[in-house]
Amino acid sequence: MKNGYNIAVLGATGVVGRQMIDALEEYKIPVAKLVLLASASSEGKKSPFNGKEITVKKADENSFNGMDFVLGAVENAQAKYFAPHIVKSGAVFIDNSSAFRMDDGVPLVIPEINGEDAKTNSGIISNPNCSTIITLMAIAGLAALSPVKSIIASTYQAVSGAGKKGLEELESQIAALSEGEKPVYSTFPHQIAMNVIPFIGKDTGNAYTSEEMKLQNESRKILHLPALKASCTCVRVPVMRSHSISVAVRFERKITVSEAQKAIRDFPGCRLIEDYEGRCYPTPLDTSNQDLVWIGRIREDLTDENGLLLWCCGDQVRKGAAVNAVQILQLLI
Amino acid sequence: MKNGYNIAVLGATGVVGRQMIDALEEYKIPVAKLVLLASASSEGKKSPFNGKEITVKKADENSFNGMDFVLGAVENAQAKYFAPHIVKSGAVFIDNSSAFRMDDGVPLVIPEINGEDAKTNSGIISNPNCSTIITLMAIAGLAALSPVKSIIASTYQAVSGAGKKGLEELESQIAALSEGEKPVYSTFPHQIAMNVIPFIGKDTGNAYTSEEMKLQNESRKILHLPALKASCTCVRVPVMRSHSISVAVRFERKITVSEAQKAIRDFPGCRLIEDYEGRCYPTPLDTSNQDLVWIGRIREDLTDENGLLLWCCGDQVRKGAAVNAVQILQLLI
Repeated sequence: MKNGYNIAVLGATGVVGRQMIDALEEYKIPVAKLVLLASASSEGKKSPFNGKEITVKKADENSFNGMDFVLGAVENAQAKYFAPHIVKSGAVFIDNSSAFRMDDGVPLVIPEINGEDAKTNSGIISNPNCSTIITLMAIAGLAALSPVKSIIASTYQAVSGAGKKGLEELESQIAALSEGEKPVYSTFPHQIAMNVIPFIGKDTGNAYTSEEMKLQNESRKILHLPALKASCTCVRVPVMRSHSISVAVRFERKITVSEAQKAIRDFPGCRLIEDYEGRCYPTPLDTSNQDLVWIGRIREDLTDENGLLLWCCGDQVRKGAAVNAVQILQLLI
Repeated sequence: MKNGYNIAVLGATGVVGRQMIDALEEYKIPVAKLVLLASASSEGKKSPFNGKEITVKKADENSFNGMDFVLGAVENAQAKYFAPHIVKSGAVFIDNSSAFRMDDGVPLVIPEINGEDAKTNSGIISNPNCSTIITLMAIAGLAALSPVKSIIASTYQAVSGAGKKGLEELESQIAALSEGEKPVYSTFPHQIAMNVIPFIGKDTGNAYTSEEMKLQNESRKILHLPALKASCTCVRVPVMRSHSISVAVRFERKITVSEAQKAIRDFPGCRLIEDYEGRCYPTPLDTSNQDLVWIGRIREDLTDENGLLLWCCGDQVRKGAAVNAVQILQLLI
């Protein structure tokens, strides 16, 4: 093991990028040099890391020379633009965008589930979609008991999924409503405060959105189950940063509720909620600003003897994005 | 037809009771005399009706003499207490509580779906659960094409389901948050502003809540499908008064998306959302303070060839409660 690694964060001033910097510190990643990269408009901003202030630089094609790892927290277009330069520099690109997730030769990794996959890569490893991470963390312990055949999921997704602008939009709408003013919106297609919006991503042609199809496509790759079927409805709710998912999952054989509870209790990164302050369920507020996926309300599916229902919550910015990426990095060092 | 009917509203000062009074006016029910009844603490309050102010009286055993219909908007215990007195008086009790819904001889009615059932009654007709009404309105047109085998539903339920106290609690929490204060709660088991709570009702012993089991039990009775199976997850969201439900429904045969769209377009009380302000979905805000159930996002269920997914929203206080009760009354006159 080296004494420390040279690590760059690309998109260091966004919500996920900032969380990556904190996670590098929290997970005690041995960092020799940390380089913070962003667009020209963020050049010169400063971020604290391990007691120092680090100045953000403008990302360009040469920013990655000498780096061991690049953590990516930028949109697909930027990820695609910079990826060849990162790979050419010899660094491993751990990318939170969806640009490369389904590409052959690019591992798509949740460390607790398919960490082994990360070891064979050609310089790019993708971080899965946030709702997919949280849903699969909840069911991976069960999938080890019997293969998953299908998933029907309805999400309750926090505004942090739309980044800083999403957080600010909900806050400003709450303030407007409490002043009796009309909330304005630009990030979401409609008022989100005191409302829910059942459409996230783009139409993919089969009436499912891009966000919804990720659950099926990414789960197949992560669980190594190419025939898995998943029907998902993605809904934005006025919650700051934890996603919740109502999941109905079917297995090849019947899994009892008590078998399921044991499997979830034993699965790393999961917390089974049986009696938490008298409740049998987590809420998004409970699970914000921590790294576990909390799972409760495990029930037999009354419509299918081989099915279970459950409710799970996890911090979208942390385990749903930044922390999972840093955990992938941790696997590699 | 009589010139007008003597009608009492029991629980006239609650959210649903007030809406019943408005609905009697809006639906032009011929009212000879309107009697408003509530508990002692509301005695003397006044409510407008057809241009007059009507004074609320304290409900007692003799309040129903001479009434033709009593619309009930009280809790189960009060409904059970007053029902024998109402029936003895010769009035028909149209009850919004869940006290009698599953009783033999008590019709459970959504007028557009099983209005015929209302005609055979022994003095009590029950109004179904709000989420059940909205879900079944969305799928009844499809059920006419092929019998429903099963439903998996996740709800996004408004705070109005907890009455005036629910509405006030969300409003006061929004105000507290915008002042940077800690929200207090007493009606809901946790902060509901900027949160969601996946537990409504009481535990029934199979880990489903009483609210969740209503979808299966009441749907069987309303659709006349005693073998129908339904797995429901009921979730409170910080929305004022419209419920939304994410529904996966399976039929005996395959129903195509275009068949489903046509059936929903043609079904009374429903509005199919294909292109509403550029959107293919309703939100709870769109559907507040009106009487239709809006349905969008109809998709093939990728996990079952005989299944469809859809999203529906409806005003919980109106079609989910008060308006459905007044529509039942309308059937009987």
